[in-house]
Amino acid sequence: MPVPGPGYSITVRVEAPPSASAAGDLTSSIGKVGGVITAFDVVESHSDRVVVDITCNTLSGDHATVITDALSVLPGVKVRKISDRTFLMHLGGKLEISSKVALRNRDDLSRAYTPGVARVCQAIAANPEDARRLTIKRNTVAVVTDGSAVLGLGNLGPAAALPVMEGKAVLFKKFAGVDAWPICLDTQDTEEIIRTVELIAPVYGGINLEDIAAPRCFEIEARLREKLDIPVFHDDQHGTAIVVLAALRNALRVVGKNIEDCRIAVCGVGAAGSAIIRLLLKQKPGDIIAVDIDGIVHTEREGLVDENLRWIAENTNAHKMSGTLHEALVGADVFIGVSAPNLFGAEQVATMAENAIVFALANPDPEIDPLEAQKHAAVVATGRSDYPNQINNVLAFPGVFRGLLDAHAHTITDDMLVAAAHAIADVVDGDRLNASFIVPSVFDNAVAPAVAEAVRAAAVQAKG
Amino acid sequence: MPVPGPGYSITVRVEAPPSASAAGDLTSSIGKVGGVITAFDVVESHSDRVVVDITCNTLSGDHATVITDALSVLPGVKVRKISDRTFLMHLGGKLEISSKVALRNRDDLSRAYTPGVARVCQAIAANPEDARRLTIKRNTVAVVTDGSAVLGLGNLGPAAALPVMEGKAVLFKKFAGVDAWPICLDTQDTEEIIRTVELIAPVYGGINLEDIAAPRCFEIEARLREKLDIPVFHDDQHGTAIVVLAALRNALRVVGKNIEDCRIAVCGVGAAGSAIIRLLLKQKPGDIIAVDIDGIVHTEREGLVDENLRWIAENTNAHKMSGTLHEALVGADVFIGVSAPNLFGAEQVATMAENAIVFALANPDPEIDPLEAQKHAAVVATGRSDYPNQINNVLAFPGVFRGLLDAHAHTITDDMLVAAAHAIADVVDGDRLNASFIVPSVFDNAVAPAVAEAVRAAAVQAKG
Repeated sequence: MPVPGPGYSITVRVEAPPSASAAGDLTSSIGKVGGVITAFDVVESHSDRVVVDITCNTLSGDHATVITDALSVLPGVKVRKISDRTFLMHLGGKLEISSKVALRNRDDLSRAYTPGVARVCQAIAANPEDARRLTIKRNTVAVVTDGSAVLGLGNLGPAAALPVMEGKAVLFKKFAGVDAWPICLDTQDTEEIIRTVELIAPVYGGINLEDIAAPRCFEIEARLREKLDIPVFHDDQHGTAIVVLAALRNALRVVGKNIEDCRIAVCGVGAAGSAIIRLLLKQKPGDIIAVDIDGIVHTEREGLVDENLRWIAENTNAHKMSGTLHEALVGADVFIGVSAPNLFGAEQVATMAENAIVFALANPDPEIDPLEAQKHAAVVATGRSDYPNQINNVLAFPGVFRGLLDAHAHTITDDMLVAAAHAIADVVDGDRLNASFIVPSVFDNAVAPAVAEAVRAAAVQAKG
Repeated sequence: MPVPGPGYSITVRVEAPPSASAAGDLTSSIGKVGGVITAFDVVESHSDRVVVDITCNTLSGDHATVITDALSVLPGVKVRKISDRTFLMHLGGKLEISSKVALRNRDDLSRAYTPGVARVCQAIAANPEDARRLTIKRNTVAVVTDGSAVLGLGNLGPAAALPVMEGKAVLFKKFAGVDAWPICLDTQDTEEIIRTVELIAPVYGGINLEDIAAPRCFEIEARLREKLDIPVFHDDQHGTAIVVLAALRNALRVVGKNIEDCRIAVCGVGAAGSAIIRLLLKQKPGDIIAVDIDGIVHTEREGLVDENLRWIAENTNAHKMSGTLHEALVGADVFIGVSAPNLFGAEQVATMAENAIVFALANPDPEIDPLEAQKHAAVVATGRSDYPNQINNVLAFPGVFRGLLDAHAHTITDDMLVAAAHAIADVVDGDRLNASFIVPSVFDNAVAPAVAEAVRAAAVQAKG
């Protein structure tokens, strides 16, 4: 059951009679239709009327209309204006570009720009690696999308993807001091995306691919890793895989199992699911059973034309199990879902092994209602912020890039991803670890520095 | 004769005896070899020694060595460290990306990022023009280069061009509050540059092309103007042309001539020269004589294969004059040079018309030493900051883009360039106008707002 949240918060300005009961009438009428009031501010007070701003969380645009309608019908009440706080926050965009140097006078200008800057240019021309010291390349990451898989919304195109990329840049800066810049490409052609990223790369110390649809994203990432001398990370793949691995590591601690003994059912083989499977395989699990819309993936299944799917079939499911998701769950120690809402219920969880672990990460509606899953599972996690154990990429990507930039890394390896996962898991120390606290809070300031240091050390080691 | 400038300023840390004469010995030895001291700071003082930081302007790296050598030979003096202030200013780059929104808690996160941001994405998908309201497109310009013509340094490539593009972005922000972002492309292929700019365009409200070599720059600009729904401006062309037109307008006021009666010799038909000619033609001058390395451009000249050169031949030089630059100067009212150093002397200026105007803009060494030009010309301007009347693009581009962004302009027209030129010229009011003050200072805060308002009004009219 969804609850009104701050993502759809409105502020309604209303004029009301100055009666003693007016405030109570307003708030109770909002409460009756399900709005959650978070602020009540009197803007003006006169002998014949008061003007108040009421801020409340709602479920949707329709719900907001229901709420304002409920106010309008009160005697003497007039709704003057409705502001949507989310839209207000986005007005004019969420980023700005600031100068790190002062231009107070002619001398400053002569150093930051011509003629002084010429010598800096010549130094970089003579020694290209100096760009990492004398330019923004030192601390800057490109957040690249083609707008083909924006959040759970699908193919909205580059312009509509920009608010998400700006938000990502805000997170990069807040959590790890990384300067991230949105690149929203007006093409969904694999070759054009690869070539464009290659051409814009000189300014950046790393590339973060974002919200690019599978299977295109796999080839783009692989080819760019070959071509570029800076690390290429696809957050929907690697960011998710890191945080899932971190959460699984701690969940297994809670239930006292070793991954080598576990059968893990992974539902969804898009960007996230495939990357999760690939990273889990590095941990030598008992077995992984991948499931997609056509059921369990195995080498004998017909229609495995997709290169990624074929690879998964060949590298998982040692006993060539076939069947449905429900069959895959029987006896499984771990379920990891990055697929679709409401695929199974408590009765299927009951068929899993003792002390089952269920990560139902489909957003906004998980594969199983976490309250149902809890009936039979020992540990439950989701992607949602309103349940415990939120699997959120923001635990990974800021620290990962901080570490890569600090190491002047030219590549990113699976070892670095695993190091990041272990660092996240280890932020939750033994005293705090329990079934409802397997990953740290996204607002835990210890996470990004720990991830950065782990990735930096792994990158330095990789360089030799 | 060049003078030591702040673009090559060093700070030398020296250890010296604590004698009464030590400071004087240090400063006079620097003065003797031509260094210009701008600061003298005692860092440490002991009974047996003092440590001081001496900051001084020098001419070059070699000159800096001469200065430190002169210090080293003083009795008891030891040079500890030499810091180059220009390089210090560039460490880590000159730009950072800041968040305009606070992320204090979960509610903020829910609005700036998921789930709230999804509604903003959907709004833009439904109405793409909303991107100019709800994203950074509102205030953001791409500064695009291929690194093929960096300052006067030539083809340094994209990485070495970045310090200039960062500097440009600093100027955009300081003078007009425009967020400008460097795009340094790792290609010098015309088609690839056009396609890449087209693909990255969704994030930007305008494109500023920069330091792209001629003749490639003409086709890139023209084709992008056709393809994109945001204005495309090539600063080396249009920025220079605007400021030249502004300066010429005021210079003609000083000498009391009308442009309709003037013969104007333009030397150099690259990016700047061509744009100057095109903009001047809109003012219906008496005649324009274009000159390049092969002499005066006219329709009968052999080898006019370049499309741009052919256009110039066909649209200037009404009397099909031929010959050398020196011949072009005879009887000319105005000389505008954007070409090469030391092409002529005072004796050629003497052959020009009465009250001649000479703009010798080649950088860093003008077509004629301005002190020589002054002997016979009524008004002289250069591109240098150490003479009066500096023709500097920073007078134009910040305000131009401020106006374009404020108008939500989809294109840029010659009328807007002319409006910008008139606005710059008009900042110098009649009381202040004289032969040594035909353009405002680059630090005059009135310039950018005046240009912005003129361009905005012209853009609104063009939409009209």
